[in-house]
Amino acid sequence: MEERCGKGGEPVSFQYLNPGRDARFKDRHTTKVDETVSYYEPGETGDIGILGLPLSKTSISLSGASEAPGSIRRALGSYSTYSGEKDKSYEDMKVLDFGDVPVHPTDNEETRKRLKTSVKEMIDTEACSKYVMLGGDHGVSFPSISAFQEKYGRVGVIQWDAHHDLRNVEDGGRTNGTPFRSLIEEGVIHGEDLVQIGIRDFSNAKAYADYARNHNIHTYTMGDVEEKGIHNLTDQVIQILENKCNCIYLSVDMDAVDQAYAPGCPAIGPGGLTARELLSSVSLAAAHPLVKGMDIVEVDPTKDFRDMTSRLAAHVMMRYMYV
Amino acid sequence: MEERCGKGGEPVSFQYLNPGRDARFKDRHTTKVDETVSYYEPGETGDIGILGLPLSKTSISLSGASEAPGSIRRALGSYSTYSGEKDKSYEDMKVLDFGDVPVHPTDNEETRKRLKTSVKEMIDTEACSKYVMLGGDHGVSFPSISAFQEKYGRVGVIQWDAHHDLRNVEDGGRTNGTPFRSLIEEGVIHGEDLVQIGIRDFSNAKAYADYARNHNIHTYTMGDVEEKGIHNLTDQVIQILENKCNCIYLSVDMDAVDQAYAPGCPAIGPGGLTARELLSSVSLAAAHPLVKGMDIVEVDPTKDFRDMTSRLAAHVMMRYMYV
Amino acid sequence: MEERCGKGGEPVSFQYLNPGRDARFKDRHTTKVDETVSYYEPGETGDIGILGLPLSKTSISLSGASEAPGSIRRALGSYSTYSGEKDKSYEDMKVLDFGDVPVHPTDNEETRKRLKTSVKEMIDTEACSKYVMLGGDHGVSFPSISAFQEKYGRVGVIQWDAHHDLRNVEDGGRTNGTPFRSLIEEGVIHGEDLVQIGIRDFSNAKAYADYARNHNIHTYTMGDVEEKGIHNLTDQVIQILENKCNCIYLSVDMDAVDQAYAPGCPAIGPGGLTARELLSSVSLAAAHPLVKGMDIVEVDPTKDFRDMTSRLAAHVMMRYMYV
Amino acid sequence: MEERCGKGGEPVSFQYLNPGRDARFKDRHTTKVDETVSYYEPGETGDIGILGLPLSKTSISLSGASEAPGSIRRALGSYSTYSGEKDKSYEDMKVLDFGDVPVHPTDNEETRKRLKTSVKEMIDTEACSKYVMLGGDHGVSFPSISAFQEKYGRVGVIQWDAHHDLRNVEDGGRTNGTPFRSLIEEGVIHGEDLVQIGIRDFSNAKAYADYARNHNIHTYTMGDVEEKGIHNLTDQVIQILENKCNCIYLSVDMDAVDQAYAPGCPAIGPGGLTARELLSSVSLAAAHPLVKGMDIVEVDPTKDFRDMTSRLAAHVMMRYMYV
Amino acid sequence: MEERCGKGGEPVSFQYLNPGRDARFKDRHTTKVDETVSYYEPGETGDIGILGLPLSKTSISLSGASEAPGSIRRALGSYSTYSGEKDKSYEDMKVLDFGDVPVHPTDNEETRKRLKTSVKEMIDTEACSKYVMLGGDHGVSFPSISAFQEKYGRVGVIQWDAHHDLRNVEDGGRTNGTPFRSLIEEGVIHGEDLVQIGIRDFSNAKAYADYARNHNIHTYTMGDVEEKGIHNLTDQVIQILENKCNCIYLSVDMDAVDQAYAPGCPAIGPGGLTARELLSSVSLAAAHPLVKGMDIVEVDPTKDFRDMTSRLAAHVMMRYMYV
Amino acid sequence: MEERCGKGGEPVSFQYLNPGRDARFKDRHTTKVDETVSYYEPGETGDIGILGLPLSKTSISLSGASEAPGSIRRALGSYSTYSGEKDKSYEDMKVLDFGDVPVHPTDNEETRKRLKTSVKEMIDTEACSKYVMLGGDHGVSFPSISAFQEKYGRVGVIQWDAHHDLRNVEDGGRTNGTPFRSLIEEGVIHGEDLVQIGIRDFSNAKAYADYARNHNIHTYTMGDVEEKGIHNLTDQVIQILENKCNCIYLSVDMDAVDQAYAPGCPAIGPGGLTARELLSSVSLAAAHPLVKGMDIVEVDPTKDFRDMTSRLAAHVMMRYMYV
Repeated sequence: MEERCGKGGEPVSFQYLNPGRDARFKDRHTTKVDETVSYYEPGETGDIGILGLPLSKTSISLSGASEAPGSIRRALGSYSTYSGEKDKSYEDMKVLDFGDVPVHPTDNEETRKRLKTSVKEMIDTEACSKYVMLGGDHGVSFPSISAFQEKYGRVGVIQWDAHHDLRNVEDGGRTNGTPFRSLIEEGVIHGEDLVQIGIRDFSNAKAYADYARNHNIHTYTMGDVEEKGIHNLTDQVIQILENKCNCIYLSVDMDAVDQAYAPGCPAIGPGGLTARELLSSVSLAAAHPLVKGMDIVEVDPTKDFRDMTSRLAAHVMMRYMYV
Repeated sequence: MEERCGKGGEPVSFQYLNPGRDARFKDRHTTKVDETVSYYEPGETGDIGILGLPLSKTSISLSGASEAPGSIRRALGSYSTYSGEKDKSYEDMKVLDFGDVPVHPTDNEETRKRLKTSVKEMIDTEACSKYVMLGGDHGVSFPSISAFQEKYGRVGVIQWDAHHDLRNVEDGGRTNGTPFRSLIEEGVIHGEDLVQIGIRDFSNAKAYADYARNHNIHTYTMGDVEEKGIHNLTDQVIQILENKCNCIYLSVDMDAVDQAYAPGCPAIGPGGLTARELLSSVSLAAAHPLVKGMDIVEVDPTKDFRDMTSRLAAHVMMRYMYV
Repeated sequence: MEERCGKGGEPVSFQYLNPGRDARFKDRHTTKVDETVSYYEPGETGDIGILGLPLSKTSISLSGASEAPGSIRRALGSYSTYSGEKDKSYEDMKVLDFGDVPVHPTDNEETRKRLKTSVKEMIDTEACSKYVMLGGDHGVSFPSISAFQEKYGRVGVIQWDAHHDLRNVEDGGRTNGTPFRSLIEEGVIHGEDLVQIGIRDFSNAKAYADYARNHNIHTYTMGDVEEKGIHNLTDQVIQILENKCNCIYLSVDMDAVDQAYAPGCPAIGPGGLTARELLSSVSLAAAHPLVKGMDIVEVDPTKDFRDMTSRLAAHVMMRYMYV
Repeated sequence: MEERCGKGGEPVSFQYLNPGRDARFKDRHTTKVDETVSYYEPGETGDIGILGLPLSKTSISLSGASEAPGSIRRALGSYSTYSGEKDKSYEDMKVLDFGDVPVHPTDNEETRKRLKTSVKEMIDTEACSKYVMLGGDHGVSFPSISAFQEKYGRVGVIQWDAHHDLRNVEDGGRTNGTPFRSLIEEGVIHGEDLVQIGIRDFSNAKAYADYARNHNIHTYTMGDVEEKGIHNLTDQVIQILENKCNCIYLSVDMDAVDQAYAPGCPAIGPGGLTARELLSSVSLAAAHPLVKGMDIVEVDPTKDFRDMTSRLAAHVMMRYMYV
Repeated sequence: MEERCGKGGEPVSFQYLNPGRDARFKDRHTTKVDETVSYYEPGETGDIGILGLPLSKTSISLSGASEAPGSIRRALGSYSTYSGEKDKSYEDMKVLDFGDVPVHPTDNEETRKRLKTSVKEMIDTEACSKYVMLGGDHGVSFPSISAFQEKYGRVGVIQWDAHHDLRNVEDGGRTNGTPFRSLIEEGVIHGEDLVQIGIRDFSNAKAYADYARNHNIHTYTMGDVEEKGIHNLTDQVIQILENKCNCIYLSVDMDAVDQAYAPGCPAIGPGGLTARELLSSVSLAAAHPLVKGMDIVEVDPTKDFRDMTSRLAAHVMMRYMYV
Repeated sequence: MEERCGKGGEPVSFQYLNPGRDARFKDRHTTKVDETVSYYEPGETGDIGILGLPLSKTSISLSGASEAPGSIRRALGSYSTYSGEKDKSYEDMKVLDFGDVPVHPTDNEETRKRLKTSVKEMIDTEACSKYVMLGGDHGVSFPSISAFQEKYGRVGVIQWDAHHDLRNVEDGGRTNGTPFRSLIEEGVIHGEDLVQIGIRDFSNAKAYADYARNHNIHTYTMGDVEEKGIHNLTDQVIQILENKCNCIYLSVDMDAVDQAYAPGCPAIGPGGLTARELLSSVSLAAAHPLVKGMDIVEVDPTKDFRDMTSRLAAHVMMRYMYV
């Protein structure tokens, strides 16, 4: 109950109202994840930085992934900061939100420039030790990883994905099918520093599997996941990267997950990872000290059921933040 | 492009980012209604005050009307401040948002107390000349109108509604079917100061129509609307109230509108007002200088299609604000 | 609170429970329409008889109209027995429900036989003065009207419909597009005793418009409705039939109504009747003493939004019952 | 039953199958509209040409209007070629489909060039006397009308729309809010040759209403529609254009229609035209001999309910084709 | 075919109709589960008792779980009484339905009293050996287990749940987050007699995990399930309770299950039990002779997809009943 | 860019348009599965034949499975011809589509005759080595397998299904519950040549489990799947059939799959196969050289979410085709 001044200097006392504050139910002992998030102010420091990259106009098929930065942030409000598995509360971890990069309505080249510049400016603040970029379609990984490479030097990338995303750029420019091709062709990353997990049958072209092989990309199919187990495979993947890279970047295309668990991805299909497999794989990877950035892409809230895919994305974030 | 300071005192310059601000597309000549809304700060004054009354636990049937204060506010972002009919722009009209009254999860009596207190505290600020209360179910009109009566004295009420909302309180307490019964029984308003427009066949009980008659409530059915025309009828209604009341309060139960135009009300049905009829009726009424308050109730966004009912509610607000 | 006996002869007293009875909220002054409905018992008499004819396997396109007898009955629970326009309560009107005719899963000829037999058996009870048949698709009107003709002799039919339903039976047997053709060809009704209201452009074939003309069927298009007004047109229609028929049967194909007001019909389209137009037309017609039966067809609850079309159908029933 | 040859020269006789042909039910007397449509072959002539312009990446807000050329074509399969109002069958009218212009995934400037070129190439065939362009968002009207101007000279435009679509192009390039601004600024049309019907309150900015006035655009608001009646207003509008233009082009933005009747437009809202009003207005306009082209835009099938908006668009097409 | 008497004593014979009986298809060899359910009559005995506890007004977030008693009962009609795994038919098992406890529209304290009283009255009939209570939200377990404790003495509880449900009651009264806290604080059960299975990360607060530990509650997280396997874990859990309790009560919060398998729970999320894991765990537990009662809670049919969650709940019931 | 002739002999050159061809985005290296499909022309040969059997009017419950041939074919457009697991591209495999068998609107016996005749005529062309029949409900397997038996002699059948589909035909004729009963009773197959995988508890009647046993049908329940593992079980099943049959036919009722993975089946439920289990089982079986035909049935696209079940069905087809 605060004392305030109304018109004409009369003291106004609101017993219940708090204009501008949330009126939702508060349990005194529970801290929701979104309660630990505040907008970045110049000079401020925190633990995790968040940035929205709401571009999906470059998707080959119609995509509403541009709405995902909002829906994933909202999903954080459904979960708490406490891990029972580790008996550890992360309520003091400070998450700084740098907002969303404004997307140009018709000029995608301009938008890509804005994305790279903004990611770079964010990490240049050195306000946090780790960052999460919320796509958007997978096309945002090209500018985002480029910014990380400029900041940190040699970047290793672990990509969870049903698709290689190594398409040629002649047939439609820089779409959501081309980011890793662009990164390699532009010399931002080495093929051998890229690991792909969850590549699925009948979801790629031979030419791009060949490209992956020819550029020494480390590719693990769903068959590999079933054979080796996701834990072992993830362990192995980290060892590939940890000795040669300055920084590890995680790129989580949610369509690596089976359509039953992630029904809101633009390119859904059966036979993918379970939610549990993805979460434990990301947990393992995120715990490595070289990991500095992660993007979560290809969540289309306009096609989802009850924000299930945004909820899973929020859990991916928590597994990444709370290590 | 603002100069800011990062960690270690380095100046940080964000070219595109504005953490905490909206990244949505901005046309330099267009002002969206939500751009004229800001949260109330003590001592501030404006033109219109908004307050959310998110109570629908008291509804007889399952209702998500508690979500409407949020969905109606969001709908304001789809429309602009300019009326072509009047060739008048309202971009300088200042709307102050007092937030939402926190609802108690299990104690409805406590919630009703909070609602009345908060409405009273808001109008006691005298920050604005007119106020909009966003329900919630129709039960919120009891505390809300009670607060207006305490502030302004004799209150006349124009209620757009398919139902009388004059049920007895013995059979279930103060539900969304009882507000005008409560107001009359508690002596807050006189029956003769209440006008009901749009009362529909097979949506009420004889006992309550009799109650209305016995208490001199002015009741206009859909048959009356068809016969007299909504313009004439509204004019007539205002004349009933303007000479005897200190203040006129509009109570818009969206289910006065046909289900085709307001598919998101809890108690939908055919044969009601068209959207155009409601909008022109509210426009006419809202222009009267005695009108100080309006509530919009019984919008359930969880049952709606593409927020059509919240959009219509937003237009009702604009017709009320922009006279 | 009833005294009852438990196991071992112990008296059991349930304070709140009433196994087999409805636990929904009861306002002592309100009678919902479904509270006036009870299942027919041999020898019982009432005012209105209801029978479900859940056949839609004969529809040309996939149809779930077989679910409508249930959804329309449930919609009756949302409305009350009181008309404010007439200030008249119909709570004492007794509605007898004869249940649903069991449909054969694969033999449609058998089903049609069951429908006709059951309608005939129902009206042969002479338990009620008027009956409502709930389809199903429009194909049910053939057996239903046949039964009425056997009972009452010369039958006049008023059909609200966007379509003539006069298709040939060679191209697919007796589908939902053929009932009135069958009735005429089988000598059940005379073409001149059939009135069609609401026939819509681009929804019929010239051959069937010609058939209507050649058989002296009275056809009123949407253009006629707009020109004459639905009140005048309905008055005129009744006069055509009242002097030459023993009985008038109303056949309400809900797709006479515009898709905005009846979104759950299988064959929706724009440019049809408004809900208000249909309701006032049915009201006028139903008030005539020769009217003995009505069917409501082509409501597909599986395609509807919030049972809007079943709700409108329920209002059609109330306008028919409560004259 | 056709004689055909199988492997090894054996005659194969398919009794029921017709690979590549439609297996849907056929009534011998009914011609569905889509049965009169065939793909254009070089040198062929017909009555109406159709072209899909599936661009909606330039929309300010997320839009799936790129899916509308398909959904509107499919809706033609639900309606027939016979008008009862005129007792006239149009089954011999030949509709030539020129297919869809391929849209570039990331380069909108390139796409706009393709649209204009393709519309021009289509009308240059002189295969038909009238053409329908199926959007896409309203941005497609700029290239489409440009092509008509090149072919026919001075073009008059009747635009049904809630919005002026006269936004500046500095704030986001050529979006769906800018087509008529672009047409005027590029000298393709004169302001005085543009008529706008259905302009709605709180859906535009003052700056653009002023622009319309300053450029002598003829603007009719919803208030004008209510006051004058849609028939009179349409008649008047045609007279404005018929003496000074070589060709009249109709541009139907479906959001001119109230959200109850066109729930699938990206920018829905209450208070617009009814379906009947739009259909009779288009009918009147389309009957004029100067009318050579029409576009139908802003139908987003991914947001629609049961393709209601595509169905209404199909009826707009029929009113245009069948005069 | 029954002989019956119509009006005037005429014998009426219905060949197909059976007013008040089900008209759905009947295979002579198949017994659907709902065919074994009848409403309890005083003095009757059976095998399993069912009672609906449709309270969800006490939920912290908006919940339609009050609709679940109906939807779960309807789901029983989709499944049969035969287990192939055991080659055993349960068609002779008699299920008695005690109906639904009427909920007070506005007074939750009163409702809770009615729930406890009604559960107690049901089990006091001693009509059955086992009972199923259908929630409602998890708040119903407090009155339900209280009734069992009064009847049977020391009660052990196995709770499948993502959440501890041990919240303090100061912050909002007795919500759906508080039942087990209330049971312990009110001395109804001992902490050591409560087992929680499926507790999930980021879904609880540290304070409540600590409370569980301090009160010797046996907690098994999803990590424990993955490590031990659900079979072993369930076996172990039963051994904890069987020697010290008079009665075991199962409390199944459906949100223990992953959102892919139970999409209709109010608080869905990824990383939970699979449907197979829940079903085999409940099967194992239910087979123990001490098990007397089970509740199934937190199914919200208004948010579900195709009643998938109610269907899973129905299978939980069958696993419980058919041991 | 092709040269073409317009009206009057003018050469017309379309730079972008290709009337009648697909305008969708084309990546030069990717071949979508639907690009390998063409309609059968007499005398043509290919690898796989496809035939649609769109019958679901015979389903016991309302079913839209008749729409599945279309939705499954469309789903092929979302996937490519390359298997990464095998590093093998199947872009040169030629798929011939024989179209859909026209279904009679009201005469199911006639439809069944058409189905059998058409399947027989297709395989009599000997145009392909393997065929896929797309249902429709499971009733189509009776005519389809009958045709295979006439062509190839002794047929072994592997059926993935939650249900036996061995119902008696007296209670409703030949529904979707009777195909394998019909096949055995009509002497088309031997009981011992039928293998059923995935039979689920509470989804069948004892009488039909007994029938299976008495006719030596090989039945594997979900319990068997869990115990043996789907790989071993499938291997074992093939060995049962390979030595005694001339041809193996796979019949995939999609409801063998858990509702989380196949939400669009008419008779969904929990506790079934995962998508991965079904896909690997079909892969194993399809690789056997005796396999000549497969049907995929009980996909109801009108009830599905985002065509998930049609997508899974498409993957089943790819696993069958690409061995």
